[in-house]
Amino acid sequence: MALIKTPVTGMKDILPKEMEIRNYVISQIQETYASFGFSQMETPCVEHIENLCSKQGGENEKLIFKILKRGEKLNVEAATTEAEVVDGGLRYDQTLPLARYYANNNKDLLGPFKALNIGNVWRADRPQKGRFRQFMQCDIDILGESTNIAEIELILATSTLLGKIGFKNFTIRINDRRFLKAMAAYSGFEEKDYDDIFITLDKMDKIGLSGVKEELLASGYEAESVEKYLDLFANVTGDLKGVSYLKETLGDFLPADCAEGLSEIMEAVDQTRTAEFNTLFDPTLVRGMSYYTGTIFEISMDEFGSSVGGGGRYDEMIGRFTGQDVPACGFSIGFERIVMLLMERDFKVPTAKEKVALLLEKNLSSEKKIEALRDAKELREAGKSVFLTVMKKNKKFQKTQLGEHGYTEFKEYFNR
Amino acid sequence: MALIKTPVTGMKDILPKEMEIRNYVISQIQETYASFGFSQMETPCVEHIENLCSKQGGENEKLIFKILKRGEKLNVEAATTEAEVVDGGLRYDQTLPLARYYANNNKDLLGPFKALNIGNVWRADRPQKGRFRQFMQCDIDILGESTNIAEIELILATSTLLGKIGFKNFTIRINDRRFLKAMAAYSGFEEKDYDDIFITLDKMDKIGLSGVKEELLASGYEAESVEKYLDLFANVTGDLKGVSYLKETLGDFLPADCAEGLSEIMEAVDQTRTAEFNTLFDPTLVRGMSYYTGTIFEISMDEFGSSVGGGGRYDEMIGRFTGQDVPACGFSIGFERIVMLLMERDFKVPTAKEKVALLLEKNLSSEKKIEALRDAKELREAGKSVFLTVMKKNKKFQKTQLGEHGYTEFKEYFNR
Repeated sequence: MALIKTPVTGMKDILPKEMEIRNYVISQIQETYASFGFSQMETPCVEHIENLCSKQGGENEKLIFKILKRGEKLNVEAATTEAEVVDGGLRYDQTLPLARYYANNNKDLLGPFKALNIGNVWRADRPQKGRFRQFMQCDIDILGESTNIAEIELILATSTLLGKIGFKNFTIRINDRRFLKAMAAYSGFEEKDYDDIFITLDKMDKIGLSGVKEELLASGYEAESVEKYLDLFANVTGDLKGVSYLKETLGDFLPADCAEGLSEIMEAVDQTRTAEFNTLFDPTLVRGMSYYTGTIFEISMDEFGSSVGGGGRYDEMIGRFTGQDVPACGFSIGFERIVMLLMERDFKVPTAKEKVALLLEKNLSSEKKIEALRDAKELREAGKSVFLTVMKKNKKFQKTQLGEHGYTEFKEYFNR
Repeated sequence: MALIKTPVTGMKDILPKEMEIRNYVISQIQETYASFGFSQMETPCVEHIENLCSKQGGENEKLIFKILKRGEKLNVEAATTEAEVVDGGLRYDQTLPLARYYANNNKDLLGPFKALNIGNVWRADRPQKGRFRQFMQCDIDILGESTNIAEIELILATSTLLGKIGFKNFTIRINDRRFLKAMAAYSGFEEKDYDDIFITLDKMDKIGLSGVKEELLASGYEAESVEKYLDLFANVTGDLKGVSYLKETLGDFLPADCAEGLSEIMEAVDQTRTAEFNTLFDPTLVRGMSYYTGTIFEISMDEFGSSVGGGGRYDEMIGRFTGQDVPACGFSIGFERIVMLLMERDFKVPTAKEKVALLLEKNLSSEKKIEALRDAKELREAGKSVFLTVMKKNKKFQKTQLGEHGYTEFKEYFNR
């Protein structure tokens, strides 16, 4: 029986042209983040199913590619539930594996641990254009740093990277989960309703103030609270003044150091950044993941409708492995989106080698073959990429094809 | 419930120190193979279970990490066999995925296709020291090249790479499956017995000529054939003369171009190589995989008992996807072994950045923080790796720890 030629549903073969761009972006990531003192680490692609299915997963649990038990541990015939036949799964993000890694290896790591984590994750999402079931994530995280030095360095490193690979005029939007909570509390909402309210708030950029108001009222919240809540958003600005306004207005609803901490992040970033971008205080920024505990951030670019990266502080994740909380803050860039954008721009990798093709007449003598190999050796030592191949009957067509793959210089070898 | 801190059985977390060496080796692989005209490509980690379990797999099939079906397609309760509950598996090598990739993407690839394929593979082997269930493979393959230019370039590229990362005095042993067959036929063995005979022959380096003889006789083969067979091995030498000797002795049992082809490979490699190594004609070299059809090769190093790489020609693999055979030849290096050896040698990555740590007094003012960040920016722009962190009470111990992680230069920041 013939084998199946196409990749499995929702995953893709990566062609050399895209691979070249991916490798270039990865090399820039490694270079840049190393300069910020991040160390690259790696976890296995497979994680314990117990860890992946712990409640933090939520919706993600359904999307896990689960791995069958093996050998004697597996009894398909007797099994009636999924749980009985699986013992592992492919990681669906890198945050949970990083927390496990830190809990497992802390004694061998420099503290604070500044981690660079580049790797594939797998999610059995419904396949759609530009979204795949295997995709690369690229995260930086600082574990064990409770001060806002973590946030500042994460934002500076990420923006420096984006600048290096040619992006400018992007916006980094910043908020703090504690602002979100304080604004809701100040307006008179009950804590049990916060998550629901934030889901509506998150739609602000799509449905606007009036849309959010309508939806909150439709959900049955007190008109007075909704009014008070939306007044805050109507009055706040996206700069340091906006932070001060909320600090004054919210008073004791806001933890003491929250506003100063955020202002300091914005100011420090503005004064020491290398790339061209804007920082924006955005009190409507929610970020979906429930594990965030403090600052949250997101990058947007005009070329994209949605975010090309984001992150925040999640001080309580590692405690789930060790019983003891460790301050943690991370920033993830949308690697696949960035690659896609570079592909669309027909980006030329600046570090690519010059390409030379050596065409050898069919049945070339040993002596001539060795001559060609010697030439190839010299050209390679001079930094070029040399493609040595047998000359085809239709040499012109062959050269055209080679040209399409970047080979523009040719040398030919004949028996006489 | 607390989560599980350790990685899944048989897989490992990679610490920053090892990661640095891995990344360095990968960068040298990419650089070197690009100079030989190889293009990097990638397939998804998950493959169709039908492809993985096609008969080529053999023993490997039992080692596959299989992936559970999802959603409506899965009915654990009704299922009685593994096949009913799985639809994919993690790849256990890169050769089958490469053949599928080529069959799927041939129209977009330059012919011959010179592929560099670096990626993890997964095998549920019994865990043992130094062997893991997830490990990196690094293969180069030339698809669509029927002449021995493929073999020559593969050997030159691989040996150049090994030389660049500091290995010398390794040996590349070369044979051809057609020699193996011709020697068995000449000695009077039956074709149905070849595989069994080769399994015994493969033990030559461990049990010697007399051991092989005993085992063949014990298996019930004709004494006359065994005698004739072993005479060949007793008389052959590991150089071009050995190839000539077999050519003359085997006569018509050997395909016409086989000996010349092999001699030419050895001669061309010897005359145009860049690294210091030996090539050796080794008619006892078998290579386990049944898919090899012609030349086979293997690298050995004194530091290791066993092989650190190998490969060969497998002209019939791609036909299993397309119905049409495509000449193919590949060379794989033992990436994990090479990394292990470099770790043991306490290898220092030559491209590593100089490391500077900036220590900030606790509760440093915004102004001073920004001063430190400016210094960090300058140092980073000068190519250094800068680690910015809060000064601990026990500063001496902190510096010792930083020193252990390569930070030997310090700068301190105080409020006054």
